[in-house]
Amino acid sequence: MSSIEKLTVSALDVAVLGLRVTSPNPHVGCIIADSNGEVLSLGHTQEAGGPHAEVVALRNAAEKGLSVVGATAYVTLEPCSHHGRTGPCCDALIQAGIKKVVATNLDPNPLVAGNGFTKLRAAGVEVEVLAPDHPLAIESRELNIGFFSRMIRKTPWVRMKVAASLDGTTALDNGASQWITGPAAREDGHAWRARCCAILTGIGTVLADRPRLDVRLVETPRQPHLVVVDSRLETPLDAPFFIAGRTVFIYAAAPNDAKRAALEALGATVIFMPGKDAKGQPTGKVDLAAMMQDLGRREINELHVEAGFKLNGSLLREGLVDEFVVYLAPKLLGQGAGMFHLGPLTELSQGVELEFKSTEMVGPDLRIVARVQRRDQF
Amino acid sequence: MSSIEKLTVSALDVAVLGLRVTSPNPHVGCIIADSNGEVLSLGHTQEAGGPHAEVVALRNAAEKGLSVVGATAYVTLEPCSHHGRTGPCCDALIQAGIKKVVATNLDPNPLVAGNGFTKLRAAGVEVEVLAPDHPLAIESRELNIGFFSRMIRKTPWVRMKVAASLDGTTALDNGASQWITGPAAREDGHAWRARCCAILTGIGTVLADRPRLDVRLVETPRQPHLVVVDSRLETPLDAPFFIAGRTVFIYAAAPNDAKRAALEALGATVIFMPGKDAKGQPTGKVDLAAMMQDLGRREINELHVEAGFKLNGSLLREGLVDEFVVYLAPKLLGQGAGMFHLGPLTELSQGVELEFKSTEMVGPDLRIVARVQRRDQF
Repeated sequence: MSSIEKLTVSALDVAVLGLRVTSPNPHVGCIIADSNGEVLSLGHTQEAGGPHAEVVALRNAAEKGLSVVGATAYVTLEPCSHHGRTGPCCDALIQAGIKKVVATNLDPNPLVAGNGFTKLRAAGVEVEVLAPDHPLAIESRELNIGFFSRMIRKTPWVRMKVAASLDGTTALDNGASQWITGPAAREDGHAWRARCCAILTGIGTVLADRPRLDVRLVETPRQPHLVVVDSRLETPLDAPFFIAGRTVFIYAAAPNDAKRAALEALGATVIFMPGKDAKGQPTGKVDLAAMMQDLGRREINELHVEAGFKLNGSLLREGLVDEFVVYLAPKLLGQGAGMFHLGPLTELSQGVELEFKSTEMVGPDLRIVARVQRRDQF
Repeated sequence: MSSIEKLTVSALDVAVLGLRVTSPNPHVGCIIADSNGEVLSLGHTQEAGGPHAEVVALRNAAEKGLSVVGATAYVTLEPCSHHGRTGPCCDALIQAGIKKVVATNLDPNPLVAGNGFTKLRAAGVEVEVLAPDHPLAIESRELNIGFFSRMIRKTPWVRMKVAASLDGTTALDNGASQWITGPAAREDGHAWRARCCAILTGIGTVLADRPRLDVRLVETPRQPHLVVVDSRLETPLDAPFFIAGRTVFIYAAAPNDAKRAALEALGATVIFMPGKDAKGQPTGKVDLAAMMQDLGRREINELHVEAGFKLNGSLLREGLVDEFVVYLAPKLLGQGAGMFHLGPLTELSQGVELEFKSTEMVGPDLRIVARVQRRDQF
């Protein structure tokens, strides 16, 4: 591994530290090193509105009284060139006397998209960008798969979590489902919640389980937003997820001004997004594809789905799911609800093709991360 | 790792070479080494009626013109002390001048069960046996789990193979199931077939799929026996598994002399083993528990089950399954047949508790080996 690669790995390690922090900004890490490869300072992007990784690293060096003149900055995304919530990182790097920038990827944000590199080069800063198929470039995009998805497709990266027995049962016929998997898997599930921008569920789950759908079992500096698919606005006003300051989006299919006002008084945002069938007739259900576009506009990068059999199936059948995090418990439960309402198919080739990305034991349970094939690649 | 452990590992490696050969004898390996730990010769147990590992290793040394006087034999099971199909290995070791025997385990065969060690010691041979919880002792018992099961419980070790989509579907509603998993998984499945003593299936599978249920995709010196659960003796006389010389056991619940004669003319053995319910009334189905006892008497160590949803469920509900080899394909198929006919349960605690023994990618598919908890341990 070259010196550039080693320092980029370190920058990625720093980026990971911001995984539960930066939303809706990308998870970016920055290492500033001198010409001998000695690390001078580091930083990752802070909460929305806070400084980006490069600025944190520059401040870190300044606090230590270290000069970064002539140093190299290793960053896990192209430094920004535009005034967003903060000033452009390019200007800060140039001003600090950074000699060279090594970046893993171009920023897919159309407001940047190469402008950062152009600006740096124009100021005499040397720029090196990893090849897009370099393993570290791929790792960096994976770390920000939701951000890349939103910037390129305009919709979130949709990750669906499922907990089932080895034979695929997610609940008994009488509804019993707590708990199929063990404490370690539930904690791991909260770690996946903690990195997302929003958790999505359906009114069925809200009414049946009264879930909080927040992050409790792992440390987090922020709670992800909550999205409820609630066609008939049945969300109870005492639902436990109405926590002060939490952003809750409720998507409905039919207007109900009184209920809407009551929910909005609790701080929720109610969005009417009625679906239509092929003949233009209202379906009485939320237009899920339009909802995803709307969630993209609302800056949701990673959308973490924890819903029931039916909504899972609807999202799947509409091709809106990118990835599954499946926990399989070492038990057999037989008859009951499966993972998704899908089929009956008549040909095996009609199935949803996946690729297993990883398998890992989490306590006594097995976690499988599987990705839908033929989805957009970033 | 000590010198003893290293040579025992080698003996286990040799034992594995006999995995598809020795049935119904155990898979045993033997290494003969001199006092410096130099390997003089090796061997594994041969086909039934052929020489055991120790005798093969002694012959191997003799063929090379090497003396084994004063040498140590490392064996993966206690050397036999009785006249079975062959003479006692103890006598051969003593006669050859072996000074010391290192064994992983006592032979659970009641005809041996320590008699081998006693006989060796009486002849002045030093005997060292690994502690039962030594990892190599456990590994050695795992390698012969079917033999240990038959000797101790008097019934085979029952391993059930299942191929399903990630969501647990084994066939579509219209019966389509070929092929859910890929070629690598099917080849791996044949490797599991090749090590068993017999493959078990049900008449439903026989009629629907006309399977051969033999070993074709991997090399094998022998074909496992076949067991068909066929309550009403519906096995077609042209079933493709009637291959010259193959042992086929057909278990039925009601006599049918004409069909029995026709099947026996094809070389099959028909066994009537009718089940009774709690009130002693005939169920019209095979008594599966009694069948397992009978298969034990017929020297079946490992029984490999490839059956449908219903027979799988019956075996499972009767507590007759020890282990599952589940291949999960990276696809979602939704509605259809599940893995087992089981339930509906009313409490999650009524499920069958498993332990995941291993998970491994086999081509694009995932293989999970899971073992039923609270089964007998060997």
